[in-house]
Amino acid sequence: MSYLLHIDSSAMNTGSVSREVAETFLATWQKEHPEGRVVHRDLGAAPVPHLTADGIAARFADPAARTPAQAEAMELQEELLEELLGAGAYLFTVPMYNMSIPSTFKAWLDQIMIPGRTLGDPKTVPTAGRPAVVVASRGGAYGEGTPRAGWDHVVPFLTTALADALGMDVEFVVPELTMAHRNPAMAELRPAAEASRTRAHQEADLHAQKIAARLLV
Amino acid sequence: MSYLLHIDSSAMNTGSVSREVAETFLATWQKEHPEGRVVHRDLGAAPVPHLTADGIAARFADPAARTPAQAEAMELQEELLEELLGAGAYLFTVPMYNMSIPSTFKAWLDQIMIPGRTLGDPKTVPTAGRPAVVVASRGGAYGEGTPRAGWDHVVPFLTTALADALGMDVEFVVPELTMAHRNPAMAELRPAAEASRTRAHQEADLHAQKIAARLLV
Repeated sequence: MSYLLHIDSSAMNTGSVSREVAETFLATWQKEHPEGRVVHRDLGAAPVPHLTADGIAARFADPAARTPAQAEAMELQEELLEELLGAGAYLFTVPMYNMSIPSTFKAWLDQIMIPGRTLGDPKTVPTAGRPAVVVASRGGAYGEGTPRAGWDHVVPFLTTALADALGMDVEFVVPELTMAHRNPAMAELRPAAEASRTRAHQEADLHAQKIAARLLV
Repeated sequence: MSYLLHIDSSAMNTGSVSREVAETFLATWQKEHPEGRVVHRDLGAAPVPHLTADGIAARFADPAARTPAQAEAMELQEELLEELLGAGAYLFTVPMYNMSIPSTFKAWLDQIMIPGRTLGDPKTVPTAGRPAVVVASRGGAYGEGTPRAGWDHVVPFLTTALADALGMDVEFVVPELTMAHRNPAMAELRPAAEASRTRAHQEADLHAQKIAARLLV
């Protein structure tokens, strides 16, 4: 039976809003789907290595002819692929680090995005149509009309990578202004931060209900 | 005297078009500026680790009160900062990996983008106004009218990170369609790939002349 694959990428184990919103998702999901299994990978606690030249060469090499370093690099890719492809749904927490995704999440993507395995026609790749929720928290706000409009390179990139390339059915939950409670210069933004966080928990709850219902059909 | 900081992020040491175009830049730069020093960091051969919770906490901790793990994480950040801030100009090679930058380059950025040290008012941060050339090679083509228009998340993100946030004076050199020579399905794109590569070498040569002239003033 398929499972929910839950991948965290925040370096912080405590004080992470993305992890806290994910908890809401998981609580609802487990209530709605008590037999449902969750597989958890924490890239903050245990990052996967960067893709190497050996890892790339191994993809093209005859398995019997791989060097020991290529075989080792491929073993990691196969492990991550098996975990990805066995899942029926995905929960990713991807806080914004310097206007983009954490390097840990990109390292994971670079290991699992493999032409002919996970990439090809987005309508027929193995992950096509599978539901995914991305909790994309950020310290500031990047919407239209804000001073940093256009600085969000998380949602646009993950839309391309997860939805357009891997074919997933992606929903984003975006808690904004998470730094407002710690940064005195952002004090007047605290009510907006609170509202964004409340909305994120509500959305996580709703998405969990929907996805649990889909997996139970 | 300041130097040119040259950072590679391709995992491949051979067959990398970004590295080959960088060679043209370096050859011109050294001809124009024979006394010029180059500091080279190869993130493909020797990646920097992902930013960790210790690395983040260390930025806020009293230096005397840092844990050994925080002190070690900060030592790496200080080493990378010193190398970055001592440079008068930058050459970055950043091939497209899965529509974005390699995780190795993001790991480096996450280590050096530090509020109050390298980030703040982009007009007055230490790297403000310094020239940077980014060789952003990619296997396909992503311009307007191509099937994958909008899938390039390298140039938009690096414009934000290097130009808008770090204040650098950034020029992009973009060799496209580098996979055309290896992928039979792209055979008809080989002349366009060749033209793009030739143009990239010419642009690298011109940028090197301009930057050498600026550093020599």
